[in-house]
Amino acid sequence: MQSADPRPELVLAGLAEAAEEKLRTRWSRTSSLLSTMCHYALVPSGKLFRPILLLESACAVGGSAEMVLPAAVGAECGHVASLIHDDIIDGDELRRGRRSVHSRFGAGNAIVAGDALIFDLFAGLAECRWTGVPDSRVAAALEAVARCGLDLCRGQSMEEELCRGLRFDLDSYLTMIRLKTAAFFQGACESGAILAGGTPEEVEALSRYALALGTAFQIQDDILGYTNTTEEMGKDNTSDSRNGRLTLPVILAYRNGGHPERRLLRQALTGEEELGHRHELILDLLDRTGALAAASKMAWHYAEASGTALLRLPPSPSRDRLALFGQLAIDRDR
Amino acid sequence: MQSADPRPELVLAGLAEAAEEKLRTRWSRTSSLLSTMCHYALVPSGKLFRPILLLESACAVGGSAEMVLPAAVGAECGHVASLIHDDIIDGDELRRGRRSVHSRFGAGNAIVAGDALIFDLFAGLAECRWTGVPDSRVAAALEAVARCGLDLCRGQSMEEELCRGLRFDLDSYLTMIRLKTAAFFQGACESGAILAGGTPEEVEALSRYALALGTAFQIQDDILGYTNTTEEMGKDNTSDSRNGRLTLPVILAYRNGGHPERRLLRQALTGEEELGHRHELILDLLDRTGALAAASKMAWHYAEASGTALLRLPPSPSRDRLALFGQLAIDRDR
Repeated sequence: MQSADPRPELVLAGLAEAAEEKLRTRWSRTSSLLSTMCHYALVPSGKLFRPILLLESACAVGGSAEMVLPAAVGAECGHVASLIHDDIIDGDELRRGRRSVHSRFGAGNAIVAGDALIFDLFAGLAECRWTGVPDSRVAAALEAVARCGLDLCRGQSMEEELCRGLRFDLDSYLTMIRLKTAAFFQGACESGAILAGGTPEEVEALSRYALALGTAFQIQDDILGYTNTTEEMGKDNTSDSRNGRLTLPVILAYRNGGHPERRLLRQALTGEEELGHRHELILDLLDRTGALAAASKMAWHYAEASGTALLRLPPSPSRDRLALFGQLAIDRDR
Repeated sequence: MQSADPRPELVLAGLAEAAEEKLRTRWSRTSSLLSTMCHYALVPSGKLFRPILLLESACAVGGSAEMVLPAAVGAECGHVASLIHDDIIDGDELRRGRRSVHSRFGAGNAIVAGDALIFDLFAGLAECRWTGVPDSRVAAALEAVARCGLDLCRGQSMEEELCRGLRFDLDSYLTMIRLKTAAFFQGACESGAILAGGTPEEVEALSRYALALGTAFQIQDDILGYTNTTEEMGKDNTSDSRNGRLTLPVILAYRNGGHPERRLLRQALTGEEELGHRHELILDLLDRTGALAAASKMAWHYAEASGTALLRLPPSPSRDRLALFGQLAIDRDR
């Protein structure tokens, strides 16, 4: 194995900038409706967690960030595709503080833009053939990314089933967010490590890391959905209430609550209450049952587990920065 | 190169059956909502043109159908994904004589099912790693399939632009259907040939074949949209009129028509007329201007061009059957 992180100047922010620059130009070369939509969705970019995870994973196993950069850009495309489609499904008009793609361009066009960005995820992966990544690694990464993409869809569909069935079940919830959120983190870390020539043990360690990190991240997302304002999040803070989402705080409130709280929760989630009131009612129930604090504790547990998984990698600056991500997943405001 | 078509027993119908069998079991192993939707969309299957094209292309360059079968199954998954999303966009309630996926399971769930089947296209491709296809070919096929998928989305989005702008422009139309329809035929033929180890010249010949065939196919589809009943097509025969689609017959009617016909066509397509009347009005205009006959002639032209492209391949039963596809694209009822 090469020495870890061959380009120490590529610190966290530097990696993000490299990916951001590529994203800025990727869909800006033609003036078609599709390019306009994809560019609108990708730029200005979000936190770029998934590309950074992919790049750091590659460096953490001794690879070069430049070689896997197209795959990192692809990882963001795939993520943004899921945001575009999610916003249609949830009827969310705001994303990153601006109108969502379907709100601006119509639902039909937004479906096509999301599809294009899924294909672009794989196009990015294929571009690694021309940055020096051997075909055998590209093919192995394809397998991992396709599997994680299918998991993402399984998770989204499972969420719909859990919400419709009002199943306040912690295990089902944890499975659902592993598929819906953590699988894409896993896809980023696994493909980064595979493309960079990591050993099966290293790929496995980064896979475990990503699943724990993604779980912590989604739990924190659930919490922020209740504690943040719409302005702070850049998206509608009543979306989870409006869509009757079975988030971790809600599930914990149900577990911790007595009969009256459970009845009220069911009413709030099935839309028997008027929307504005519904959100307030849920917030009050979360407060009364200590559900937010309990959810926070679980997020910390998974963040810690992500750090533990990393110990099976050789020490490196990238490993240290990946460990920092566990903190970031919990400490972020949005 | 190996001798062409090593398994002569795999005639057209036999190949379709092999792919059909795989499609029947692919999404039937679990009882989740996602599996239910994907299975519903895939089974009973349609004409399986794309998987058959992929398999025959592999055989036509001396490869084995078995080795590329997972990719062929993936090609159908990708195609069905686009049908699911198209039906949402066009508001079509019928597909293959049954309720469309969004009509049966809701638009949000159908978006996720379509996404899953796009990922499954790539999962199928990756499965070829385990049927004996070298990784270098899988990686090269990935590149071709991702590019064709992006073209598909470009074509769908371009169609929306042309229709919104009422651009009765033949060149734009031909570019649009090359992207929207022919690119996926191209993806099937190219990836089949690449996975089977075809030479660059063979891949190129099959690519040209597929583009001409796909163009003929879409033109015939346009024609059938006016000449067939809803029952014959298994989908709503007023969909193109209702959605103001700029099909080839409509574009030719506009070119061949005088001022009154052009005015009426614009009115019919912009929805100034009531729906039932709109469809009748367009049919009458197509009849008056001889547009359907002219469109048919163009379909034949492209079908013939597809046959010519095949002459650059070595003779084989698969090449003969691919040539037959040109006829099928034109002669089919739906």
